[in-house]
Formats: sequence, structure tokens, C-alpha cells
Amino acid sequence: MSSVEICEILDPICQKYFPDDCILSIPIADGGEGTVEAFNTALSGTKKTMTVKGPLGEMTQAEYILLDTESAVVEMASAAGLPLVKNKFDVMKANTYGVGQILLKLLMDGIKTIYLGLGGSATNDGGAGAASALGVRFLDSNGKPFVPSGGTLKDINEIDLSSLPHEVKDSRIILLCDINNSVCGTDGAVAIFSRQKGASQSDQVILESGMINYVELLSKISGLDIFSIPGGGAAGGMAAGFTALFHSEQKMGIDVILDLSQFEDKLKTTRFIMTGEGKIDQQSLSGKAVVGIARRAKKQNVPVFALVGDIEGNMDEIYEQGITGIFSINRQAIPYAQAKSRARSDLVQTADNLLRVLSSIGI
Amino acid sequence: MSSVEICEILDPICQKYFPDDCILSIPIADGGEGTVEAFNTALSGTKKTMTVKGPLGEMTQAEYILLDTESAVVEMASAAGLPLVKNKFDVMKANTYGVGQILLKLLMDGIKTIYLGLGGSATNDGGAGAASALGVRFLDSNGKPFVPSGGTLKDINEIDLSSLPHEVKDSRIILLCDINNSVCGTDGAVAIFSRQKGASQSDQVILESGMINYVELLSKISGLDIFSIPGGGAAGGMAAGFTALFHSEQKMGIDVILDLSQFEDKLKTTRFIMTGEGKIDQQSLSGKAVVGIARRAKKQNVPVFALVGDIEGNMDEIYEQGITGIFSINRQAIPYAQAKSRARSDLVQTADNLLRVLSSIGI
Repeated sequence: MSSVEICEILDPICQKYFPDDCILSIPIADGGEGTVEAFNTALSGTKKTMTVKGPLGEMTQAEYILLDTESAVVEMASAAGLPLVKNKFDVMKANTYGVGQILLKLLMDGIKTIYLGLGGSATNDGGAGAASALGVRFLDSNGKPFVPSGGTLKDINEIDLSSLPHEVKDSRIILLCDINNSVCGTDGAVAIFSRQKGASQSDQVILESGMINYVELLSKISGLDIFSIPGGGAAGGMAAGFTALFHSEQKMGIDVILDLSQFEDKLKTTRFIMTGEGKIDQQSLSGKAVVGIARRAKKQNVPVFALVGDIEGNMDEIYEQGITGIFSINRQAIPYAQAKSRARSDLVQTADNLLRVLSSIGI
Repeated sequence: MSSVEICEILDPICQKYFPDDCILSIPIADGGEGTVEAFNTALSGTKKTMTVKGPLGEMTQAEYILLDTESAVVEMASAAGLPLVKNKFDVMKANTYGVGQILLKLLMDGIKTIYLGLGGSATNDGGAGAASALGVRFLDSNGKPFVPSGGTLKDINEIDLSSLPHEVKDSRIILLCDINNSVCGTDGAVAIFSRQKGASQSDQVILESGMINYVELLSKISGLDIFSIPGGGAAGGMAAGFTALFHSEQKMGIDVILDLSQFEDKLKTTRFIMTGEGKIDQQSLSGKAVVGIARRAKKQNVPVFALVGDIEGNMDEIYEQGITGIFSINRQAIPYAQAKSRARSDLVQTADNLLRVLSSIGI
């Protein structure tokens, strides 16, 4: 279930038990798929579509959100995401060119700040495809410009930023990212994420050596040590590329959406918060939505209840971040395949039970 | 887990979150296996043992509980229960004689009221074996007395109560029972319960015709319509036999234990109750512990929280009985076999989460 769906499910149950309260739904996304939708609902943006190149060069309809006249939200997956390649995985040939097309259009239209969600990529091009669309020239050893993909990063001999439009130079592209993997090496984009994008072991050797070549050039041109940036491996190294080429900064999706929705201001009159995620475990401590919300709520002593699919391991550290209670929606000891098909009704009933308890004991 | 174990698990967690409260544990049993143990813990009785005949005539050690000088608790399963026959099921030959031996000893020792738990029987003798031990004479068509078992109920031609000791006549034997099955017919003792006691289809024909013969005699001698007593089929028809022969009354185990433990008096100073069962569903409405507790608590507005294994179906009617909230201990979508092995830790963590919520929002 998407966060928008879950908000729709919980809203009437909250109304039922707290009829005199105002129920505020803020769909949360952490940069992955659903980010655009969540931002759109949470921030009352305007959804737009545009035809761009998909990851394998075919044309596709991509969505983005205008927040106001100066800012927008783009999900890289909408132009270069895994669902777009369906069963024709080709991470060697896939690139992010279409993402750059969206960004360029927005910047040319006067948008200054773009929130770029990095989850769900089908690519491993270090964002070079998108950079090409934005005006970066990648030259091979013969000085010939080309648009790189994962398989041809190794062929880049020079990166030329001299013809970047000033709208691109002056842009503020904020990367929404919730992983810490670096761009190369054993915890890098290729090692950890390329397999799920269809890379074979021999593909991986080519991808990694190409990425190393690319990142060496990125480091030189930016004066930064791009190899060691935490999260540089996000979206097939797009985070690394954009940091070097456009001075992009990374933020956690949860923090951006909470800031933009004036979350802390709203906390002042909040009785309690309900949130959740598919599975809560030790990983939830590193930037996932539930903990991001809890940390802010804790400062203002607002109770936070998490409704989750599975609960794994000890929750003491999670509680310490500001979570008051954690409730699994599993109501029967049945395997995941069965549980999945009834998740919606389990969520409804678990939320109903919790809210009736909270209202009956007078939270 | 037994109710005694669960009390031991929950006690320290309650202490942790409500350090200034007095935690009162009342293990609950509904007449089935574990009744004696639960009564013993809940009511601070004295556990005794005695050597009697087991269901197949072998000698066995049976336990019972003295509550005071005039009342005691006996579990029929301790002298005629399924665990005693292990893999040698023989419901045709098994009888309740040993149960009668315990009852007779207690009555002769001056005990006036005996609470007899009826769950878990290996027998289908309509309690005739126990009645024999208590002085009832069962005569065959030749006028010869014999001790009936399931297979020989059909041979009873006459029931003679003339030599009952006055201690037996004056006794009050209260049957702890939580089923409504009648003694004969399609929902009767033979049809519903004899298979699990090892009866074949041809055995069932003999058992049912024997039971009909027996119940006709019981009805005649008592002047009651024993066929139509709800719950008469409990413990292989022992409830029917004892109702006719000793004017025994049936009570729900939960009600007896709550009465004897002065539950309603204690409710006056109770902040909240935690209870539970293996699975909560529509059946829980008919006399199971959770609902029995909730009904009494509701009258005094004491919140009741149920920690359960599985939750099945709609809980609205259960809530209406006085349950404030129901929490499944399932924390992951895994099959029962896996869930079972971690039930103890799941219970601990689910209880801990609930109690921390209750304490933090100030119940």
C-alpha cells in the first residue's frame, strides 16, 4: 500500500474515534517510488506530465509536481525507473537522459529548486545521461561527444561543463535519498544494486570499472573526493554525478517533506501521530520515515504510534527516538503470501483497535 | 503456555511500567486441563495427590486441590484424561472409576463442595464408572452389578441408588464445563468427541446406542429430561450422568474462579486488566475466559486488554462485552509452526509495548 492509500484508510477511523479533532494526513515518501504522489498530496502541488526518453530510449510519459512557481518535485524513477523497463532489464544500455529532459524544462521555465527523488532506478550511469540533457558534454578519447550509459562510462575521457546554461548553473537540485552506500567499491552502486537491475557478473566488472573512470573525472572537475561521499551510490551513482556536476546536496526525503509541510508548527496542536512502515527493524534508525517523524515529535512530547507490517528485533532504540508504541498489523500466524492479500483489512482492524483504546482511555 | 506461565511472564512487565501499583495475578482455567493448577495458584489452595485407577484400570497418581476444610477442586482428566492413555486409546473400555475414588475420599473426609473440571476426558462412560465408585449400582439384565465403561453402557438394565452413602447424597458437585453439546445425537458426546478418543465408526454405533440406553434410565430415575440438558455431553457424558445421579449443577469455570477469588470486589480498586487466549473469535462469546472477565469488568468500567495469539473475524461483539482492546502477539507474517516457537518472546514484547503505551499516556 502506498502512503497516500494508507492515509485514506486511516482518516475515517481517526474521525470515528476523535470526531471533534481535525485529522491531518501527510503522506510520506523517502525518495523512492511514490515520492511524487506523496509530495503532491502532502503539499497540495500540481501534477504535470511530459513526454521524455525512457531508460532504454523509448518515449514515455513522466510525471512531476509543481509546488509553486519556483519549486518542483521530480522522481527519477518516472523517467528512468525499473517499472519502465519491465522485463527487458538492460542496465548496460539504460540511462537517465529523460530525467535530465524534465529537469531542463523545469529550470528553463523558471523553477529554481528541484527536489529529485532517487529511488527505484533502472540505471547505473552515474547520472551522466541526465547531465547530458542538461548540457554537460561527455567526450570520448577521440574528443567526440556522446551520451553515456552504464556500459559506456568507461569511454568517457573528458567532461566539459563550458556550455551549461546559466539556469542549470544557478539551479538548486536537492537529492532525496535514504541510503548511505558510496558510489564504488564493496558497498557501492554496482556491488549492491546492479544485480536487481539485471547485471550479470561480467556486466558488473564493466560497470564498476566504468564508474571508477567516471568518478575519477568527477573528482578532478569538482575538486571533491566523490568516491567517499555517503549516499553517492544512490540511483546508480546519480547522486555522485549530480554532487560533482551541479553541486547538488542530499537530504532525507522525510526531512524535506516534513519541513515543507511545516510539520513542527503543526505539532504544537497535535494530540498524537500515527505513522508506519512495511517492516520496522534496526535499519529504521537510519533515516526511515517513522524515526524521522518520531525525533521531531519527541521534542514536543507528542505521542507517536507506528502501525507496521513486521516487527523485527529489539525495539528499545526505536522507542528512544520518540516512538510511543509499535503495533504489527499481523493478526494471525500465517505466511507472508497469505498475510499480504489481507493487509488492507488487517490494517483497518488494527488501527481501529488502537484508536478505540486511545480514545477510551482518554489520550 | 499455561495461564500460570502467562501470569509469571506478565507480572514483571506490569511492575516495570506501574511500579507503584499492586499487580494481582489470577490464572484462569475453564474446566479443561490445567484447571487444578490454575485454581491452586489463584486461590492459594493445597495440592494433594492420591493413587486411583486410571481410565484403563492401571493405577495412577491423581492430583486435587483442597481450597479449605469444606471445598476442593478435582480435574476429571487427572484420573481419566487423554494424556493418561497415551497411545493406547480404548474409549470402549475406558471409564471414570478413578475420578469417583477421589470424590468419595473427599466426601468421606468431610468435604461438602467439589468443583469438578470436565475437560480432556479419555472416556465415554457417561460418568457411570465414577458413579460406581461413589456407590451407585449398575445391574445387567441378570441383576448382576458391574462397573460400566463406554462399551458396556448398553448392558445396563437398572440403576440402583439405594446404597449411596449419605455423604454422597448430601454432596454438592459443581461441574466446570464450557461446552454446550448434549449427551446424545448429532452434536452429542459420541458424535463430536469420541473420534479423538480413538473410537472407530463401528465403536461409535455401540457407544451411541449404549449412551441412549443409559440416558433413558437416567431420565427415568431422576425425573429429568437428561437428553436435552445443554452441556450434558461434556466429559463423555459425565455431565449428564452426574446431573441425573447427584443433582450436580454446571457452571462455567471462569465464573467459579472469579467468584471464588472475589474478583468483583477486587475490581473496585483495579486500574486495568490484562487477559488473553490462544485465539479470539466468535466462539469466545460463549463462555470463554476473556469475555467472562470483560462482562464483569464492564459493570465497573475497568478497562480490559486482551493479548491473544490469533484474532479471527469481526471483533465488534467482543468489544461490546467489555473488551477495551485486543492485541495479537504475532509480530511477523510467518506460519504457525514458526510463530509457535517464538510465542513466549512475542508475548513479552507485545505486552511490553502495550504497557509502555498505557503508562505513557497515563491510563
